[in-house]
Amino acid sequence: MEPTPRTQIKRLPERGVYERSTVNQIIDEALICHVGFVHDGQPFVIPTIHARVGDTLYLHGSPASRMLRSIRNQPICVTVTLLDGLVLARSHFHSSMNYRSVVIIGEAREVNDPEEKTAAFEGVVEQVASGQWDYARRPTDKELKATSIIALEISEASAKVRTGDPGDDEEDYELDIWAGVIPVTTQFGQPIDDSRLKPGLISPPHLNTYQRP
Amino acid sequence: MEPTPRTQIKRLPERGVYERSTVNQIIDEALICHVGFVHDGQPFVIPTIHARVGDTLYLHGSPASRMLRSIRNQPICVTVTLLDGLVLARSHFHSSMNYRSVVIIGEAREVNDPEEKTAAFEGVVEQVASGQWDYARRPTDKELKATSIIALEISEASAKVRTGDPGDDEEDYELDIWAGVIPVTTQFGQPIDDSRLKPGLISPPHLNTYQRP
Repeated sequence: MEPTPRTQIKRLPERGVYERSTVNQIIDEALICHVGFVHDGQPFVIPTIHARVGDTLYLHGSPASRMLRSIRNQPICVTVTLLDGLVLARSHFHSSMNYRSVVIIGEAREVNDPEEKTAAFEGVVEQVASGQWDYARRPTDKELKATSIIALEISEASAKVRTGDPGDDEEDYELDIWAGVIPVTTQFGQPIDDSRLKPGLISPPHLNTYQRP
Repeated sequence: MEPTPRTQIKRLPERGVYERSTVNQIIDEALICHVGFVHDGQPFVIPTIHARVGDTLYLHGSPASRMLRSIRNQPICVTVTLLDGLVLARSHFHSSMNYRSVVIIGEAREVNDPEEKTAAFEGVVEQVASGQWDYARRPTDKELKATSIIALEISEASAKVRTGDPGDDEEDYELDIWAGVIPVTTQFGQPIDDSRLKPGLISPPHLNTYQRP
């Protein structure tokens, strides 16, 4: 993707990445995104579940939500962030974090076509747990109507990535101060049975060995 | 805190929490926040490091950043999200996530007073790694000048919390479909030495046993 004036990384441009494959990887690994929209001049940022289907990002919610009602045909921003490490430098000034983030801007489009809506719903379910769409009960027509799906084309987007060691001032490398990185990862535990689980049922393999792409 | 029309949780109001202690706990546990602001009518959402000092939230960045230049005296929204679990229901429609989030709105104030700026810087450093402010090299006057700190009063804020089992439709409890929760936690690894670490230095105890409040 070509950076636009709105997505070009100006601050620390060496961290900017515009390749679609990198952007897609970050979107796909993240479990949630943060959606920014404007309501009566006030910006709001709401966490929500997303899914990428091809070059389209889908956001999922209830028709009753203020966000989904506010953003139809409006400019929005969707940001996805993965935290990879705490970067402890010899000076506080150069301490930082290792992360991968994506910012996508564009106009929100409400999805009304039942076929696209079902595909987006499947995308969201599979994004959270691959294999789950075929396993659990699919939405009825009534449930599909009671679900709002918003689409955002991934055309104006950029990624920002920081990796590796701290970058200290040259003279600080002589200080007797430890520096390095504390790795941060997201861990998934063993599935916990619902308290009303039907006797004899066990969690399926695709949830027992849960991991992100 | 009293909910205002802008922070009252309308969708699933039973998930809304307005107690300051809950709001503070979520802010303090999170390593990053997402800041929403408007620039030329377009909302932007940027991840950044934050710290709470009393009832004030501080955001930290470079004076060169588009965000920090854009938000002075402007309405912003800061959202903090902790993901606690994947909620797999018997139906896709009722599948969800367990999470704790906080939304704070208000006007961004640039911090210029050196004393408040230093206290905020300390807050940010300690928020990431408690004990680090006294350990690593403190900012010089020049570095302090090269740092932008934005303050946001935590007065118009709300938390939203989902915990526990899926809530399936009554008739779905009879289906032969497993349901439950996959716990999600953030894990911190052993500190990794900087490749240019001065020989003989080892990582200090407050980083070896790193954990969040």
